[in-house]
Amino acid sequence: MFPRVAWVHRGLLRSCARLPVCMSSSGIGQKGILANQVAVVTGSTDGIGFAIARRLAQDGARVVISSRKQQNVDRAVAALQGEGLSVVGTVCHVGKAEDRERLVTMVLEHCGGLDFLVCNAGVNPLVGSTLGASEQVWDKILEVNVKAPALMLSQLLPHMEKRGKGVVILVSSIAAYIPSVELGPYNVSKTALLGLTRTLSLELAPKGIRVNCLVPGVIETDFSKVIYKNEAFWNIVKENYKLQRIGQPEDCAGLVSFLCSPDASYITGESISVAGFSPHL
Amino acid sequence: MFPRVAWVHRGLLRSCARLPVCMSSSGIGQKGILANQVAVVTGSTDGIGFAIARRLAQDGARVVISSRKQQNVDRAVAALQGEGLSVVGTVCHVGKAEDRERLVTMVLEHCGGLDFLVCNAGVNPLVGSTLGASEQVWDKILEVNVKAPALMLSQLLPHMEKRGKGVVILVSSIAAYIPSVELGPYNVSKTALLGLTRTLSLELAPKGIRVNCLVPGVIETDFSKVIYKNEAFWNIVKENYKLQRIGQPEDCAGLVSFLCSPDASYITGESISVAGFSPHL
Amino acid sequence: MFPRVAWVHRGLLRSCARLPVCMSSSGIGQKGILANQVAVVTGSTDGIGFAIARRLAQDGARVVISSRKQQNVDRAVAALQGEGLSVVGTVCHVGKAEDRERLVTMVLEHCGGLDFLVCNAGVNPLVGSTLGASEQVWDKILEVNVKAPALMLSQLLPHMEKRGKGVVILVSSIAAYIPSVELGPYNVSKTALLGLTRTLSLELAPKGIRVNCLVPGVIETDFSKVIYKNEAFWNIVKENYKLQRIGQPEDCAGLVSFLCSPDASYITGESISVAGFSPHL
Amino acid sequence: MFPRVAWVHRGLLRSCARLPVCMSSSGIGQKGILANQVAVVTGSTDGIGFAIARRLAQDGARVVISSRKQQNVDRAVAALQGEGLSVVGTVCHVGKAEDRERLVTMVLEHCGGLDFLVCNAGVNPLVGSTLGASEQVWDKILEVNVKAPALMLSQLLPHMEKRGKGVVILVSSIAAYIPSVELGPYNVSKTALLGLTRTLSLELAPKGIRVNCLVPGVIETDFSKVIYKNEAFWNIVKENYKLQRIGQPEDCAGLVSFLCSPDASYITGESISVAGFSPHL
Repeated sequence: MFPRVAWVHRGLLRSCARLPVCMSSSGIGQKGILANQVAVVTGSTDGIGFAIARRLAQDGARVVISSRKQQNVDRAVAALQGEGLSVVGTVCHVGKAEDRERLVTMVLEHCGGLDFLVCNAGVNPLVGSTLGASEQVWDKILEVNVKAPALMLSQLLPHMEKRGKGVVILVSSIAAYIPSVELGPYNVSKTALLGLTRTLSLELAPKGIRVNCLVPGVIETDFSKVIYKNEAFWNIVKENYKLQRIGQPEDCAGLVSFLCSPDASYITGESISVAGFSPHL
Repeated sequence: MFPRVAWVHRGLLRSCARLPVCMSSSGIGQKGILANQVAVVTGSTDGIGFAIARRLAQDGARVVISSRKQQNVDRAVAALQGEGLSVVGTVCHVGKAEDRERLVTMVLEHCGGLDFLVCNAGVNPLVGSTLGASEQVWDKILEVNVKAPALMLSQLLPHMEKRGKGVVILVSSIAAYIPSVELGPYNVSKTALLGLTRTLSLELAPKGIRVNCLVPGVIETDFSKVIYKNEAFWNIVKENYKLQRIGQPEDCAGLVSFLCSPDASYITGESISVAGFSPHL
Repeated sequence: MFPRVAWVHRGLLRSCARLPVCMSSSGIGQKGILANQVAVVTGSTDGIGFAIARRLAQDGARVVISSRKQQNVDRAVAALQGEGLSVVGTVCHVGKAEDRERLVTMVLEHCGGLDFLVCNAGVNPLVGSTLGASEQVWDKILEVNVKAPALMLSQLLPHMEKRGKGVVILVSSIAAYIPSVELGPYNVSKTALLGLTRTLSLELAPKGIRVNCLVPGVIETDFSKVIYKNEAFWNIVKENYKLQRIGQPEDCAGLVSFLCSPDASYITGESISVAGFSPHL
Repeated sequence: MFPRVAWVHRGLLRSCARLPVCMSSSGIGQKGILANQVAVVTGSTDGIGFAIARRLAQDGARVVISSRKQQNVDRAVAALQGEGLSVVGTVCHVGKAEDRERLVTMVLEHCGGLDFLVCNAGVNPLVGSTLGASEQVWDKILEVNVKAPALMLSQLLPHMEKRGKGVVILVSSIAAYIPSVELGPYNVSKTALLGLTRTLSLELAPKGIRVNCLVPGVIETDFSKVIYKNEAFWNIVKENYKLQRIGQPEDCAGLVSFLCSPDASYITGESISVAGFSPHL
C-alpha cells in the first residue's frame, strides 16, 4: 500500500539517483516541525539511535540512518519506510574514514545539505576495568566514541554551513557522571563527550550551529540488558534514584526532537539527562 | 471578534462560577498538546513568566497567572485573553501564605486539579553584595526565592496528586552557576533552587510528578537590562561565551513547553540552561 | 591538674583579660604552621567541628570554639586545654544576633584580629521531607545553615580585614550533591552553601580572603549515626561508592588545616569532598 | 659541599646500582612527611611538574623525574640534586610503551616500590580548533593526555600494590571545565581526565590507592604564556574571576603535597582547582 519510498540504501541508490530523492511520495511527516530538513543519525539501526531516526522522520525530516552491518541497515530502512517515513541508509563504521566519506557523499548527492547530525554510534561498553584495558581497547574506544564524532562533523560541516544553521547532538551516557567500574574506558570516553559538546558549541556558535549532548540513563535496549536484567542490582538502582520505570528509546528521541526544533534555539553546549533522575547540579 | 473568554480574574470569577470555567469558548489552543490540562505560573505578568504562561496556553493548557500587583495581573490577563487564550489571574505575592492560599483556592474551585506548576516569582536581584546584605534582605530573598516555591507546591500538591501525574518547573538563573558579585544573596538563592529541584524530584517521583529547573541566561527583560544595556560589559560577555544574540523570554517558554510534554516524561531532577552556552559539565 | 591554660571561657575571661591572652603557656603547637594566628570554629564542641578546632590548635593557632550549650563548651575547652592547646570558648547559637555579637567581642577583645573562620554550626538534618516541612522548619534551616554563616562573617570581617588576608571555610555536606529524601530542606541548605562559597570567594578576593567549602561524606559522628548504624543501607552505600571505611572527623580537619595553610593560597571558591569518593565532575 | 647525591639518571645509574640508591646521603628532606616514600612525576623538568617534583622531594620523598628530552632531564636532576634533594631522572615520552617500560624498570630496580604517581606529561595545548584537528592531532592528544596516564599506571600498579597503599594524581586543566575555542581537542582530553580520575578512584579504592585530579588555572609557565602575555585578554580574565595574581607552579605543588599526605586519606576521585577561583559547583 505504501509507496515504495524513493529513499533506498547503497546499491539501489545509484540507480535512482536522478529521481527526486530525499522525498517520500506518501507525504507522511512532511508537514511536521522538521519538514524539508535533513538528519543524519549514526548507530541508528536499533535501540536509541533507531528511535531517534524514527522520531526525526516522524517530525518530517529526511533521515539518513547507518550502522556497521548491511543487514541491520536493510532491516531498519525497510521498517521505517514501511511506516511511510522518508529514510535512507548506508553502512557506516564511524571509526573508518572511508565509511564516513561514503556517508558524506550520500548526504551531499541526495539531500543537498544537512540540518541535524546525531552521533550515536559507539563502542559496546563491556570492556572490563580501566587499568586492565590494553592499548588496543583504549584506541578503539577513544577513536570510535570521541574522535569519530568530531571527524564526522568536520566532514559534514560544509553541508551544514550551507544552511546557515544546524544542530549537532552527541550521545553520552550516565556513565559520564557516575562511572561503573565494569565499564572502564567507556566511562572516560563518555565524560570526554561532555567536553566535546562544550568546545564544539563555542566553535560553531558563530556559524549558527548548536551542539548539545543527550545523556541517557538506563534505557531498555540490548546495550543495557546487563544492568536491568540483574534484578537485585536493578532494584537497588531503582530505589537509590527513585526510578519508577526503565527508560525507553523513545524518551531519548523526544529530547532530540526538541533539541532539533526552533524551541531549543537558545540552548547550546548543554548536556541533558534522560535518566529518571539527574546526575549533576 | 474574540469570544469573550470565560476565564476572568478575581471579582468576575465569582459571578460566572457556575459556567464551565477553565475553558475558552474559542477553543483556541484546546487541541494543543496540553489540552485539558491546567497550569499555574507565578510571576507571570511580564518577562519570562508571561512568555511561559502564553506558551502553555497556546499549547492548549488553561493557565492561572499571577504576580504581586493587581494592575499587572489585569493587563496580562487582558492581553492573553485578547489572543483567545484560556487564562485567568490573581494577585499573589508568593511569600505570603494567604496569597498562596488564594491561588490554591482558585485552582481548586475552578480547575478541579493541577498539572503544571511553574515557579517563576522571585525577588529582584539587585541587592548588592553578599556580606553587605542585612538580615532582612537575606530573609526576603530566601523566603521568596527558595521557601515560597516549596510551600506553594506543598499547598498545590493535593490537586496535582489527584491527577496521578504532574510537572513542576522551578526557575533558577545562570547566576546559580556563575555568581555575580553584585547579585549577592540572589546568587545563593538560585543555587539553592538547583538543590531544591533535585530533592523534590526524588520525593515526588513515586507520585508520578516530575520536577525540573529552567536556568535562564541573559534574557531580554527589564530584569536583565542592567546587564545588556551596559554595552561594554555585554560585549565582553558575548565574546566570552560566543553568544550570537540575547535570549528571548520565548526561548525559556520553549523549554518549559517541552518539559511539560510527554516527550520529557523520563526527565526529572534536571537543570537545563537556556543561555546560549552551558555553565556546567 | 590542668596545665595553666591562659585561655578560658566566659566568666574567667574577664578576670584575666590583662594577661597576654591567646597564648598557651605550654607552648604546644605555637611553632606550628598556623602559629600566632587566630581561628574561630562554630559548632565545635563535638564531631567534625571539634576535630577541626583541635587540629587548628595543634597547628599552632589560637582557637575560639563555640556551640549552643554552656556545658558542651566547658567540656570541649577543658579537653583541648588539657592537651595543652590554646583554646577558648563561648556559647554561641549562630542564628542569634546577640550570640554572634558576643563571639565577635571575644575575638576583638582577646585576639586582636581573626585569620580563619570555620562555619560548622548547623541544624540537625533529620527534618523529614521537603514538602512536609513547615514554614518554621524552613526558616530555621535556612537561617542557621545559610544566613548565619554570611552574617557571622559580616560581623567578623573587619577583624579579618585588618590582617590583610584570611581564610573562610563553610561546611556543606555530600547531601548538597546527592540529596536524601529524608533530609528535605537540609539538602537544599547545603546546596545553597556551595553557592555561598562561590559568591563570597569573588567578593572577598580583593581583600586577600579566600573562601572554600568542606563537603563531608559519611563521617563517624552522632550526626551520621542514622546512616552508618543502619547496616543494610550502609553496606549498599559502601558497595556503591567503593568505600573502604567510614570517614573520621580528623579527615575533615586535615583538609581544613591544608586550606588554612599557605599551600592553599591560590585555592578559593572551591568545594572539596572528604567522602571516600567524589560526588561531582 | 653537597654530598654528590646517590641518585643519578640513566647511564650513571647502572654503575652505582649496588649503592643504596633512592637515598640522599645528605638526609635532606628525609625527615619530611613523605620520608622513605617514592614518587614518580612525569613531565617534570620544568613548570608545574618540576615544582611538584621538588616539593615532594622537599617533603622527604625520593622522586623519579622525567620528560621527553635528555638535556632537560639532566638539567632538572642537576638542579634538584644541587638543592640536596633525592632525585633521579630518565627520559620518558609517556606515549611510548618502551619509554614507560624504562621508567617502570628504574622504579622497580632502584626504589623497590612506588607510593605516588603524578601524571603531568601532556601535549602542548596550542592545537587549533576542534573541527580543524586532523586524525593525527586527535590521536596524539588522546594518546598522550588520556591513554598514557592509564597505561603508565597499569604498568606501575604492581609496585604500588606491594605497598598496600598509594596515591595517583592526574593533572587536568581549567580548560576541562571552561573550554577555549583555540585549544580544541586539548579541552576534550582534559575533560576526559576528570572522568578517568573518577573511574580509577573506584577501581583502586579496594587496593588502598587514592586517585585525585589537580586542575590548574592560569599558572605562570611557558605553557600559559599565550594567555597571560596577552595583556588585554589577561586583564579581562582577571577581572572576570577576580584574580589577584597569576598562579605559580608552587601553588600546584602545595595541593599535590597535601593529596599525598595522610591528611588526605579520605579524599579520592576528587578534582580540585588551583586557579584563584572555582569553575564548578
